[in-house]
Amino acid sequence: MFSHSAIIVYRLPWTWKCSKLLMKSIHAGLHAVAAILAIISLVAVFDFHNAKNIPNMYSLHSWVGLTVIILYILQLLLGVFVFLLPWAPLSLRALVMPIHVYSGLLIFGTVIATVLMGVTEKLFFALSGSKYSTFPPEGVFTNTLGLLIVVFGALIFWIVTRPQWQRPKEPNSIFLQPNGGAQEGVEGSAINFNNVDKSDSELNSESTARKRNFIIDEAGQRSTM
Amino acid sequence: MFSHSAIIVYRLPWTWKCSKLLMKSIHAGLHAVAAILAIISLVAVFDFHNAKNIPNMYSLHSWVGLTVIILYILQLLLGVFVFLLPWAPLSLRALVMPIHVYSGLLIFGTVIATVLMGVTEKLFFALSGSKYSTFPPEGVFTNTLGLLIVVFGALIFWIVTRPQWQRPKEPNSIFLQPNGGAQEGVEGSAINFNNVDKSDSELNSESTARKRNFIIDEAGQRSTM
Repeated sequence: MFSHSAIIVYRLPWTWKCSKLLMKSIHAGLHAVAAILAIISLVAVFDFHNAKNIPNMYSLHSWVGLTVIILYILQLLLGVFVFLLPWAPLSLRALVMPIHVYSGLLIFGTVIATVLMGVTEKLFFALSGSKYSTFPPEGVFTNTLGLLIVVFGALIFWIVTRPQWQRPKEPNSIFLQPNGGAQEGVEGSAINFNNVDKSDSELNSESTARKRNFIIDEAGQRSTM
Repeated sequence: MFSHSAIIVYRLPWTWKCSKLLMKSIHAGLHAVAAILAIISLVAVFDFHNAKNIPNMYSLHSWVGLTVIILYILQLLLGVFVFLLPWAPLSLRALVMPIHVYSGLLIFGTVIATVLMGVTEKLFFALSGSKYSTFPPEGVFTNTLGLLIVVFGALIFWIVTRPQWQRPKEPNSIFLQPNGGAQEGVEGSAINFNNVDKSDSELNSESTARKRNFIIDEAGQRSTM
């Protein structure tokens, strides 16, 4: 929930008026809340297993799930150090951005797959003795929930890959772009995610940015008609 | 296997010299082979279930799996009619291309998730009576296989979203681009997949295309250093 909101937070046209630093902080903050909740869930699972004498970490769900939570935390730390804190040079940001976008979407997809494996496991545990295969209401209900999780993932993936919902590049950042391969890497990243800029340079030209945003907003609405 | 090769077939720089129609045919052909194999597998599963008196279509794996196979066939038919056959106007191709790319990647990811659910089910069937939780070799082996399937999916997703491995646009297509929203949709699609062009216009300027491909090829190699 928090993680999905964090992924699409730059994609809401009404937030384009907000400063980049604010949006970055919301993006990182929501991901941090999601990471903390994930760690709490993980502790709860291990506690539950230990209390009931169920072995830990034997299923594919647990292997993929633990891997993806570790990657999620690494991605969060990398994001904070490279994009949120002001120390990283622009060339490093440009280099890391396509990897950050790619890993973000990959982790997101793998989380959906892990959830589906978890639901599958749970159904075979709870409806054991071939009860699941008699189409009980709880089985049909949970299968429908699983399908809806796929649909939800598909919607987030749609929102995050539409160019018309992409936050417009800060006007100043054109002059701040590094040259050569790094620039190409940022501009042509998986979701056209060319928002590498100096956070402190954007306040100077807020009115220009707003004007530009409205034009792009209109174009976005036109192309979704 | 065929499906994954089909997805990345435009992303091999040594194929950029080949005609667009040839590459489209290979893309469609590999997907068609994959679709036929998927249908054969589906028939085999139903036959196996019926022979052993196992109910069909009760698990989440089967629900997501059947949905994705139907979507795969629809995507194939849509692709053939809109992009391979010469009748569809350029404006329609431009409109459908971002959807085609999006659905392709979505179906690909959902297939990986379905495979992981299938592996999870199979492990709980084959290693029942809590044998799975004692870390038997076949459990560890199959979990590792599951992780490798995720890594394989991640690699394909990486290849298909790198701008430097994108097939260069045919030179003539710049003049053939429709104006307005449609053009924006094609140029800024999920994987910068701006290869909408008239198939019969590309032979006229093959030498220009080759020249251009070499330049882009070089740039691609530079940015991967």
